[in-house]
Amino acid sequence: MNARQDVINGDLLVEDSRITALGSNITASADKVYDLQGDFLIPGLIQTHVHLCQTLFRGQADDLELLDWLRWKIWPLEGGHDPESIYDSALLGIGELFLGGTTTIVDMETVHHTEHAFQAILDSGIRALSGKVMMDEPGGGVLPSLQESTEDSLQESVDLFEKYHGQGNGRLEVAFTPRFVISCTDALLKEVSRLAREKNAFVHTHASENRSEVRVVEETRGMHNVVYLDRVGLTGPRLILAHCIWLDDEEKEILVRSRTRIAHCPSSNLKLASGVAAIPELLKRGAEISLGADGAPCNNNLDAFVEMRHAALIQKPFCGPTAMPAREVFALATIAGARAIGHEHDLGSLEVGKKADLAVVSRQGLHNWPNEGVDVYSQLVYQARSSDVRLTMVDGRIVMEERRLLTIDVPRLKESARRSLERVRRRVGLN
Amino acid sequence: MNARQDVINGDLLVEDSRITALGSNITASADKVYDLQGDFLIPGLIQTHVHLCQTLFRGQADDLELLDWLRWKIWPLEGGHDPESIYDSALLGIGELFLGGTTTIVDMETVHHTEHAFQAILDSGIRALSGKVMMDEPGGGVLPSLQESTEDSLQESVDLFEKYHGQGNGRLEVAFTPRFVISCTDALLKEVSRLAREKNAFVHTHASENRSEVRVVEETRGMHNVVYLDRVGLTGPRLILAHCIWLDDEEKEILVRSRTRIAHCPSSNLKLASGVAAIPELLKRGAEISLGADGAPCNNNLDAFVEMRHAALIQKPFCGPTAMPAREVFALATIAGARAIGHEHDLGSLEVGKKADLAVVSRQGLHNWPNEGVDVYSQLVYQARSSDVRLTMVDGRIVMEERRLLTIDVPRLKESARRSLERVRRRVGLN
Repeated sequence: MNARQDVINGDLLVEDSRITALGSNITASADKVYDLQGDFLIPGLIQTHVHLCQTLFRGQADDLELLDWLRWKIWPLEGGHDPESIYDSALLGIGELFLGGTTTIVDMETVHHTEHAFQAILDSGIRALSGKVMMDEPGGGVLPSLQESTEDSLQESVDLFEKYHGQGNGRLEVAFTPRFVISCTDALLKEVSRLAREKNAFVHTHASENRSEVRVVEETRGMHNVVYLDRVGLTGPRLILAHCIWLDDEEKEILVRSRTRIAHCPSSNLKLASGVAAIPELLKRGAEISLGADGAPCNNNLDAFVEMRHAALIQKPFCGPTAMPAREVFALATIAGARAIGHEHDLGSLEVGKKADLAVVSRQGLHNWPNEGVDVYSQLVYQARSSDVRLTMVDGRIVMEERRLLTIDVPRLKESARRSLERVRRRVGLN
Repeated sequence: MNARQDVINGDLLVEDSRITALGSNITASADKVYDLQGDFLIPGLIQTHVHLCQTLFRGQADDLELLDWLRWKIWPLEGGHDPESIYDSALLGIGELFLGGTTTIVDMETVHHTEHAFQAILDSGIRALSGKVMMDEPGGGVLPSLQESTEDSLQESVDLFEKYHGQGNGRLEVAFTPRFVISCTDALLKEVSRLAREKNAFVHTHASENRSEVRVVEETRGMHNVVYLDRVGLTGPRLILAHCIWLDDEEKEILVRSRTRIAHCPSSNLKLASGVAAIPELLKRGAEISLGADGAPCNNNLDAFVEMRHAALIQKPFCGPTAMPAREVFALATIAGARAIGHEHDLGSLEVGKKADLAVVSRQGLHNWPNEGVDVYSQLVYQARSSDVRLTMVDGRIVMEERRLLTIDVPRLKESARRSLERVRRRVGLN
């Protein structure tokens, strides 16, 4: 898939971390040659909103709405993390992402131990824009284990940025990551806005996911959520906002005008009973939309194929059968994701000079057969499954081949993750 | 899973086609012993609405509403079938179903060549309630290739019933299968009603899937769709109605009172832009609901795990996060499916004396790990994927083991299906 989403029959040459040739007339001698036998070679999938630190808590918080889900389950569990459990949680999520062809994520960690998630990102080979969560607003049900002062929150975020931004051959970038307006003071958000401009850094947060959330923002800030984010100077092409379901007309216009990046999370929006985001309307207005699975406890998968199929299907009963066609949805999970993180020049499509972030998707399964007359994007969005992914490459390095993870010791991780969950649950009084 | 949905830690003994012991104290010598190592042994999944004859047309009819989808794509393609393409289409669907743990289906074939689909059902070992589609109403865009007289339609349906009902050790049962009210005459539906009562047979049809469909029924019959089905004597515990989205209060009451079986098809309802069926309300009223993937060209999978997850998630934004909990959804795909086809005494749960229709679901994948404190039904509905199914057994016979189909020659089927699709497409002018 190149920038015009053409489907090309041919070969692709990778040298070091880049694509250096593409097409039917490549003459090169390569160390390794893969015969894909008619399978699909696609750009690595990009998910612009996940929480690696929550992977360990999959299935621990079902059937709750956002604020209860946070206060009763997710905040206590995040507060129970230790360095090792953060590392295991991140690696568990990354393994699942690689097995499903995701090569790049925008990640939100928790308040503490973020450097251990960064270590998992660096060790595994995934590409990530990640940051420590910021929560300096006292009250609102935040436990002492997650409460931090404004100064500490800012200082730690800056320290992480200085130390880790650009590490791993540029694979790890660091963002400022306030959780959402409710859990942040006005002072913190204004300083984040100033710092992000100063350092040309991204800001990644949640907005307008849930009706109770936007009501609280209106009560405490005296204005609508996105209007407030605009007033404190956060909106713009370096702000990534997850969800954006409950927006009025003025807020939609602010997001479009400011080119703020919207991370659409269809499964999570359904499972937390948040709502159905007006994505077709936002796209028509010119909004910048990409896709993400969100965290494991509100999904309960981290599967870009599931999110693509949901993003397409969920809109059709409301907007008609041609809403969100497969080709457009596939772009949301690739080139639009690259644009969201300012990497459209080197990620999100298969073109000479771009980074070798890619995946091979089998079309040999009975559920993909036969193919004559079937649109490639229909196959990728409506039919294909993460279990069809045969190979995943990030930055020119193969991280998964024939369903085996090459950068993660799976038996060791599983045993360590089991013990980590046990420890966290004990620490927060769950067993 | 027994009738109370208890989760039991223990062993299960199969002799011939039945479960003969269950629990932790079985003393028996078996020909084969499987160590499931903590994986899930579940009742075989039951899908109460599929179209095996359409599997070959997956991806040939995307992004259309029901009536256009039928008239422009599906009816011409069905009319282009030959005996071999029907057989291949059925076998292709059955292979995918086995790989996803589905052991029983309620199937709707097309007008012609139904005996060849029956042959695929008998050869493969799946359990099915199936029938030839009936379409005797001239007009409405039906092509000559599918048009049949009332007499021929009835006679052929009766002949198929007499010849095939109960074949394959009872695995194949035959239903009367009018397509939907629009494509059937009043005379045909009344005679189907009489015949079904006489033979104690099931009737399987579509109803109230689409707003244009219910409008046409109201114009031609002068009453609402389900009221009409009730008047011609079809409603009752031996009628399976697929979809049931556009119902008024009176129609809901008729369905509940008559104990008519409703086959809910969440993916198909989304993809054809049909709507979101009011399943939580119908369940509360006491309606009989089960699940189905519908045909491959309106889904585009035949995956009970996808349908379970959709059935749960799609309702939550409208009915709250506790709507359609995992445990209840899993019952829809098992014991409720058994009840839908009058087999609750011998299918749909793992109990001594019931048929050995079952599946083994791995929980070893990173996306299922770790499990401590996670509800089993949450794992099955929110996390698990069809690719997690390790073994599928129908009627005591293993039909899939470690992702290999044991009753289907896959390379031969793939080549034959490829040629069949080519033939059908050529016949209807598509290449």
